[in-house]
Amino acid sequence: MSTVQSIDPATGQIVEKIEPTTPEQVAELCRVASDAAAGLEALGRSGRAVLLRAVSDELEARREEIVELGRRETALPEARLNGELTRTAYQARLFAEVLDDGGYLEAAVDHAGDTPMGPGPDLRRMLVPTGPVAVFGASNFPLAFSVPGGDTVSALAAGCPVVVKAHSSHPALSRLTYEALVAAAGRAGAPAGTVGIVYGTEAGAALVADPAITAVGFTGSLSGGNALMEIIGRREVPIPFFGELASLNPVVVTEGAAAARPAEIAEGLVTSVTGSGGQLCTKPGLVFVPAGDAGDAVVSTAVERVGGAAAAVLLNARISTSYDAIADELSAQPGVRVIAEGGQPGGDGFGVTPRLLEVDAEQLAAVGIGECFGPTTVLVRYRADDESATVRALAGLPPSLTGTVHSGPGETELVRRLTAALRPRAGRLLYDGWPTGVLVSWAQHHGGPWPSTNTQHTSVGTTAIRRWLRPVTWQNAPVDVLPEELRDETRSVPRRIDGRLELPV
Amino acid sequence: MSTVQSIDPATGQIVEKIEPTTPEQVAELCRVASDAAAGLEALGRSGRAVLLRAVSDELEARREEIVELGRRETALPEARLNGELTRTAYQARLFAEVLDDGGYLEAAVDHAGDTPMGPGPDLRRMLVPTGPVAVFGASNFPLAFSVPGGDTVSALAAGCPVVVKAHSSHPALSRLTYEALVAAAGRAGAPAGTVGIVYGTEAGAALVADPAITAVGFTGSLSGGNALMEIIGRREVPIPFFGELASLNPVVVTEGAAAARPAEIAEGLVTSVTGSGGQLCTKPGLVFVPAGDAGDAVVSTAVERVGGAAAAVLLNARISTSYDAIADELSAQPGVRVIAEGGQPGGDGFGVTPRLLEVDAEQLAAVGIGECFGPTTVLVRYRADDESATVRALAGLPPSLTGTVHSGPGETELVRRLTAALRPRAGRLLYDGWPTGVLVSWAQHHGGPWPSTNTQHTSVGTTAIRRWLRPVTWQNAPVDVLPEELRDETRSVPRRIDGRLELPV
Repeated sequence: MSTVQSIDPATGQIVEKIEPTTPEQVAELCRVASDAAAGLEALGRSGRAVLLRAVSDELEARREEIVELGRRETALPEARLNGELTRTAYQARLFAEVLDDGGYLEAAVDHAGDTPMGPGPDLRRMLVPTGPVAVFGASNFPLAFSVPGGDTVSALAAGCPVVVKAHSSHPALSRLTYEALVAAAGRAGAPAGTVGIVYGTEAGAALVADPAITAVGFTGSLSGGNALMEIIGRREVPIPFFGELASLNPVVVTEGAAAARPAEIAEGLVTSVTGSGGQLCTKPGLVFVPAGDAGDAVVSTAVERVGGAAAAVLLNARISTSYDAIADELSAQPGVRVIAEGGQPGGDGFGVTPRLLEVDAEQLAAVGIGECFGPTTVLVRYRADDESATVRALAGLPPSLTGTVHSGPGETELVRRLTAALRPRAGRLLYDGWPTGVLVSWAQHHGGPWPSTNTQHTSVGTTAIRRWLRPVTWQNAPVDVLPEELRDETRSVPRRIDGRLELPV
Repeated sequence: MSTVQSIDPATGQIVEKIEPTTPEQVAELCRVASDAAAGLEALGRSGRAVLLRAVSDELEARREEIVELGRRETALPEARLNGELTRTAYQARLFAEVLDDGGYLEAAVDHAGDTPMGPGPDLRRMLVPTGPVAVFGASNFPLAFSVPGGDTVSALAAGCPVVVKAHSSHPALSRLTYEALVAAAGRAGAPAGTVGIVYGTEAGAALVADPAITAVGFTGSLSGGNALMEIIGRREVPIPFFGELASLNPVVVTEGAAAARPAEIAEGLVTSVTGSGGQLCTKPGLVFVPAGDAGDAVVSTAVERVGGAAAAVLLNARISTSYDAIADELSAQPGVRVIAEGGQPGGDGFGVTPRLLEVDAEQLAAVGIGECFGPTTVLVRYRADDESATVRALAGLPPSLTGTVHSGPGETELVRRLTAALRPRAGRLLYDGWPTGVLVSWAQHHGGPWPSTNTQHTSVGTTAIRRWLRPVTWQNAPVDVLPEELRDETRSVPRRIDGRLELPV
């Protein structure tokens, strides 16, 4: 097992070396997490809300140190890291609200009584935590999808101890934020083992294979996800794998949109493609722009903006090398035109050149465009007078997290048809906006058909908690063994009573 | 591909021969199901409620014919088949109520506004159908988990076309009930392809592999489930497999319960074990009975009842052969005592002898008891004064659909501790009752940790619909492209508005 070593992407200098976690240490961490499960659940909704608010406070209290270390290990701008910390701290408080609300329990009570099948028993259902879960940190969101972030706080909210696999690109930041979580758990009276951390690829594999782990949350590459799914496939007990993997995020700019606001669309697009070095799972990777004058106006502004864009520093050597390789390969395909290039990188870090590519819709199928993580996108020039060809092209794309339509005045029916074409292949549909920037909220959904995710669950938004819960029904249970939320006198959470939804009093 | 042939389990006579569906026919059925998806969804909640009520009516209208054919293909008693039809017809109407209610959509609206992360967009989330699904009929519930039944009606309610793999034990009944579904779909104006059917093992495999299929519902054996999961593992796009597989359903009879009502417990147990020939997934397969006088009283009545039980006719040759083999193997294990045997079967059908087995708790781990489908159970004699040993024994069992405690007066704390031991390994907890007989209702849950099921979902009860749905969020969508349930003026379904749950008006 090799040392986990992080490198400053801007300079190529080593930032930190951390010893990998041994298989024995992983097993012990999982055992401790298992032991913590009952105590974490026993804190109850109010106790875990205290824990989540403590997580928020601890992250805020260490903001300066976290952002500074994050800057060195990721080269992401200070403003971005500050925004990410704000988002994660907010998210922890939002899940505290989810716990206060209690609707996530899906509590239901059917009182005993006659049914068409004879006398029915008293049945009471709610969701309970599945047990310890594994969370894999992502390189591109060192604070929002890593040791702290949506997976961790939603799992803690559910009542599941979390063992995080630290991403090898930012092990020091992982350790620092892990310490913040441990401090918060201590302050909130959560049991030891509520959060754990492992370092190194082998440790991650051992974690997923450990019998104590009941589910896996992962944000990363399709190949990484497939490797974990293979390990799960070899487990005696299969467990759910919630992977957020690859996404192309198609955008359709209609003729009306291109005619109405070409510069605005081009500028929004380039900002969305180059922000955070294009290293966002929702980056628009394929943009249908109409052939002809209106579309040309969009393209010319986009060319100008990408041409003026500075070189981007990517997160690690693998991402930077892979970006150059995929972008080169794409550029070399017959029919693909490189229509703009941004600044050339200098120095010894992981710098790359932003690129804008173009292809005619007729050749799209032959080119076969997949995700290219980094500051590039492909403009697909399509014939606005051949809508069925566009719909066919959309149907031929791999499913994505998002699908976007930019339209102009009087195009309602067209937008409806494009929505129908996009919905089967996306989890979030956007109109006249850009898919990057995923708000953490109650109505958010971040998950599309495979390979973007596993379809039925989200990794962003309050319903992300559902991944770490399972239903249990108590039949004719004495009141003393029932969870508080299922007792008759309780009115603190929304409940379905004999089929009728009732709000808390 | 061999002909699918059903045999009367009571006589061994052939009832029906049906040609297996070819791979080409399976592909065509899946294509037609795909084409039906948009139309089935477009029926809307009210249109699909009409469809489900028509399903209920059609099954009721053909009750006599269905029960008569079912009797010949399954040898289940007429009363049982009538009850099952009633249950399935009721279930279809219950899912119509689920549609009327609309809470299953999990509709949520977050209006645009300021957030700690800056201005937030308008986000609107609800669940949409995943697309065509495959349902595998089970041999032991020819009307409730087969062509008609919980999987089919919950999927139709969700808006998913269903292609059923007919169970080879009752192909004629499958065809007859399929015709009822087709008639109902026609009456309700549902598109052609809303329901399809395939016959034969190879056709089932082709069905699960077909790219149009988005999820699989299966009730059957662990080996059958594993075979289907292997096929899914080879798909380009993985899909959820909702399997209801093997379950031991442990029961703990406390010292207090045994002392208070030995005969009642013994009689309830034997009824639960021998009903429907013991061919129920919730049959209690392992019963902890205290050693000593109180437990002896339970055992002696149970011995008497099993000794007086008639031979059972099982559903097919495989189940009957497997029952004899597993029961023989169990009986031969060191420490296992055969303490009662029921009547011997006569004739040429699939008759078997009910058996009651006994083992001391100290030897349970060495014996390693798995599910034995059929009229047998194992009494585990345990020392009531060594509670920790009992808790350890429970923790060593494979997870189940259910866990049951029978207790006596003044044992509240004991019941609480037994509940804590059982809950991690079961999806339904019962008190002073028997796990067979699973009510279809709002608060029901039928699913435990693997291998009993996939843990997070149920195959009985109104929330079974969740298996066939996925979330979609619309961001800044023009009102004209929004589903009716997400428009501001709609108040027909429960919705979470800016984080606050609101009831329909």
